Amino acid sequence: MTTMTRSKAHADLLDHKRDTATLGSVAGLLGWDQETYMPGAAADARAAQSSMLAGLIHERSTSERLGALIAACESDEDLTSDAQTAAELREIRRSYDLATKLPGDLVREMAETGSKAQQVWKKAREGNDFAQFEPWLANMVDLARRKAACYGTPEGGEAYDALLEEYEPGATAREIEAVFTPLGERLSSFIQDVADNGTPPDEAPLNVKVPDTAQHAFGLEVLGAMGFDLDAGRLDITAHPFCSGFAPGDTRLTTRYRDERFTDALYGTMHEGGHGLYEQGLPKADKFGSPLADSISLGIHESQSRMWENLVGRSRQFWVWAKPIADTHFAGALDAFGVDDMTRAVNTAKPSFIRVEADEATYNLHVMLRFEIERALLRGDLEAADVPAAWNARFKELFGLDVPDDRRGCLQDVHWSFGLIGYFPTYTLGNLYAAQFWETILEEVPDLESKMERGAFGDLLAWLREKIHAHGKRYRAGELCEMITGKPLSADPLMRHLERRIRPAYGL
Amino acid sequence: MTTMTRSKAHADLLDHKRDTATLGSVAGLLGWDQETYMPGAAADARAAQSSMLAGLIHERSTSERLGALIAACESDEDLTSDAQTAAELREIRRSYDLATKLPGDLVREMAETGSKAQQVWKKAREGNDFAQFEPWLANMVDLARRKAACYGTPEGGEAYDALLEEYEPGATAREIEAVFTPLGERLSSFIQDVADNGTPPDEAPLNVKVPDTAQHAFGLEVLGAMGFDLDAGRLDITAHPFCSGFAPGDTRLTTRYRDERFTDALYGTMHEGGHGLYEQGLPKADKFGSPLADSISLGIHESQSRMWENLVGRSRQFWVWAKPIADTHFAGALDAFGVDDMTRAVNTAKPSFIRVEADEATYNLHVMLRFEIERALLRGDLEAADVPAAWNARFKELFGLDVPDDRRGCLQDVHWSFGLIGYFPTYTLGNLYAAQFWETILEEVPDLESKMERGAFGDLLAWLREKIHAHGKRYRAGELCEMITGKPLSADPLMRHLERRIRPAYGL
Repeated sequence: MTTMTRSKAHADLLDHKRDTATLGSVAGLLGWDQETYMPGAAADARAAQSSMLAGLIHERSTSERLGALIAACESDEDLTSDAQTAAELREIRRSYDLATKLPGDLVREMAETGSKAQQVWKKAREGNDFAQFEPWLANMVDLARRKAACYGTPEGGEAYDALLEEYEPGATAREIEAVFTPLGERLSSFIQDVADNGTPPDEAPLNVKVPDTAQHAFGLEVLGAMGFDLDAGRLDITAHPFCSGFAPGDTRLTTRYRDERFTDALYGTMHEGGHGLYEQGLPKADKFGSPLADSISLGIHESQSRMWENLVGRSRQFWVWAKPIADTHFAGALDAFGVDDMTRAVNTAKPSFIRVEADEATYNLHVMLRFEIERALLRGDLEAADVPAAWNARFKELFGLDVPDDRRGCLQDVHWSFGLIGYFPTYTLGNLYAAQFWETILEEVPDLESKMERGAFGDLLAWLREKIHAHGKRYRAGELCEMITGKPLSADPLMRHLERRIRPAYGL
Repeated sequence: MTTMTRSKAHADLLDHKRDTATLGSVAGLLGWDQETYMPGAAADARAAQSSMLAGLIHERSTSERLGALIAACESDEDLTSDAQTAAELREIRRSYDLATKLPGDLVREMAETGSKAQQVWKKAREGNDFAQFEPWLANMVDLARRKAACYGTPEGGEAYDALLEEYEPGATAREIEAVFTPLGERLSSFIQDVADNGTPPDEAPLNVKVPDTAQHAFGLEVLGAMGFDLDAGRLDITAHPFCSGFAPGDTRLTTRYRDERFTDALYGTMHEGGHGLYEQGLPKADKFGSPLADSISLGIHESQSRMWENLVGRSRQFWVWAKPIADTHFAGALDAFGVDDMTRAVNTAKPSFIRVEADEATYNLHVMLRFEIERALLRGDLEAADVPAAWNARFKELFGLDVPDDRRGCLQDVHWSFGLIGYFPTYTLGNLYAAQFWETILEEVPDLESKMERGAFGDLLAWLREKIHAHGKRYRAGELCEMITGKPLSADPLMRHLERRIRPAYGL
């Protein structure tokens, strides 16, 4: 029991981390409020508040005292001989090193350049004018390279691996490539196959009009059935949905409604709900601030959101339960449709240009394209000026479509403009982990599919809590995947899942 | 121009104050969120966040660096020879002295004892058991005395004056008494007079049922006409209405709705709206953190809320404009009533036991009673054990009623339980200032009453902005009153106002 051997330095270290996390949770509230209820005229004041908090947090996160506490704990065998505490110290060390390795000048330059580049990107996208954005993209790539150099490249690795540390600790570009390449090939031919031989599902059930209030009531009922604790969280409306689990007992989701395509809001809510369940499942009540109460990686976080959105939400079993519930809220709008109509309509695989509007299958091709291009940029194999041509050529190979303009091509995403390079792969890693976990879940949770038909998701959540959420950052993503599924991450489960879902929807 | 002569120390001082105010504004958001949207399970996390912010703010507010900056500015004649800067420095010094004069031990003891005493008070009130609360009241009085001793009593003054410094800087108990005593006597006999000789107005217009949504739409329209900028503020719903103007461009009001007595919410909204207009009128955009962008005192703040609530909101002119607007929202609920019915119904003077439910006239008697008792406690002229007897005897004199139990007597208010002694008088000071300002306003704003009949409140707001809001804390409350009205604060304007409003409502 670590409690018995806990040294003064360890207690002080955890106090220090908890206080910093408390400040972080305040910054989290500022961010949430900014997107939900803040009056427009408060924008400047909010920027000052957020920047002040960020400064205080940075100061604490890089302080010499923190470094000394970490070092003291690392030299205490009573602590390091306990596997859980050792993992905790490993992760505290990792985040301290990441925070202290970047010189203040570089951090400021990234923030300032990113802020300007984002403005330029916005105009360039509007005007479909890549040339305007090009020097800024080159600049952000250069900054990312300098950042990677500060972090240091692991032996035998590449600069991209250093950037991954922030989003997907321990992952390498080579490992990701090893899974993405077969997935990409199989996905491309699968999508071609259903397009050539199948009949696209009728999307009429998605085109019914449903008022916001009815969608909101339905969404809350689904969230409740998923096990999201609304006494320890909220659901609000924002332009861009997100989940912010900033403090113990405080996990806030947002969604958005349009009066058509009610499934956009439904799956948006289930997606954020999945993130929210992970946040609520982390042991924050007694370990807030410790990595043992923090999420493993963006990929694992995304696996939780994608699982509820896709594996659960697009299943026939889900609609067996949810269709009658939707009917109680939607005043007959879906009367003409049955469970199979609903299921088919939400399982398409149709190439399109915009990532954020893509279906579950083609989405991953969008991610791979970005991964390849940003990796080539970082290696110096591709110049910023050549991005549009490279993008369009690869898009044609992956999707069989000609990109009509950069607005619908390489200018569509905000990420690169403020230096998020190395982030995209985590979206598909989420899909891959979700599908691989799901195969194990179906083996280990008795009768899950029939439970889902009754809206009984409690056993699924209990499994996720025990196998994933409870550990915090104790295990690396890849390690957890092997522990849980007995195998390293592979493209097979996701492909099996997509084929099983989408073929029948196309009558194949 | 102070800009030209501004020393480095002055610039640093204002930066220091602005940064502290920015932290304070974050604490303000935490408080607002706690009352509005925070999930219940986040209570412990919120306490940790608030306490952390309070600690950081206290540290900055008492830092030696701040003291040195103040001293440097005070010794710079370029600064002190400018009247506005001299006032700014006077107030910065004042708040620094208040913050540094209290030893940390006493602050902690007050916080801890107050927190416990509040719990005891809650139970004592529920159980109508003063004996349970008595030792805690004695304790809080003792702590207040120790606090006053730290602040120091002004020459010729008393301990009560020292406590007033926190709420009504520069005011003294003797001055307050000099206004309260004649006001109390005249009010008591006035209330007796209308009760004996008049006919109480028919309150039927207040008993119609109006749904929350209609009340909310009506309230927003009134707020908009008052000039409250909803792009720089909000209106939400809470159990206890408040106004929190925590940052430039961010002033948030709350109100509450019941489906009867829609005027409770209306006047609550107008009251908080008056506070909000003051906050929005303070020059925070360029002076945030300086006393020149801060409110003068609680009394002056309350004068702004009471002016809109009572002087404007209960006038016949207001109802000439507002009644048709209420009718557009209330679906015929008020069809049976005219402007005079509305005006009469909201102008009563009827003794009752509970302060927060009292009408505009009798409210002040409740305040005077508390002022007398807390002053006697502080002087040692009254023991905690004797409070119920003293309360009930004086209540009989002021209101002509026998207090049935302590729940409806000396146990009704939370203030004393957490050490708010010296706060009550500011409520009536607000009424007095509002009425005295109003007489000047009627002279200086042409045709105000006919403008009010058209809902044109712009000239009134412009006057308040120019004469009161724009100055921040440059002038003391009493000084401002003399500057604006040419006379020291007096009971006359309030008595004239009440007589003019209430006599006709009673058919006198």
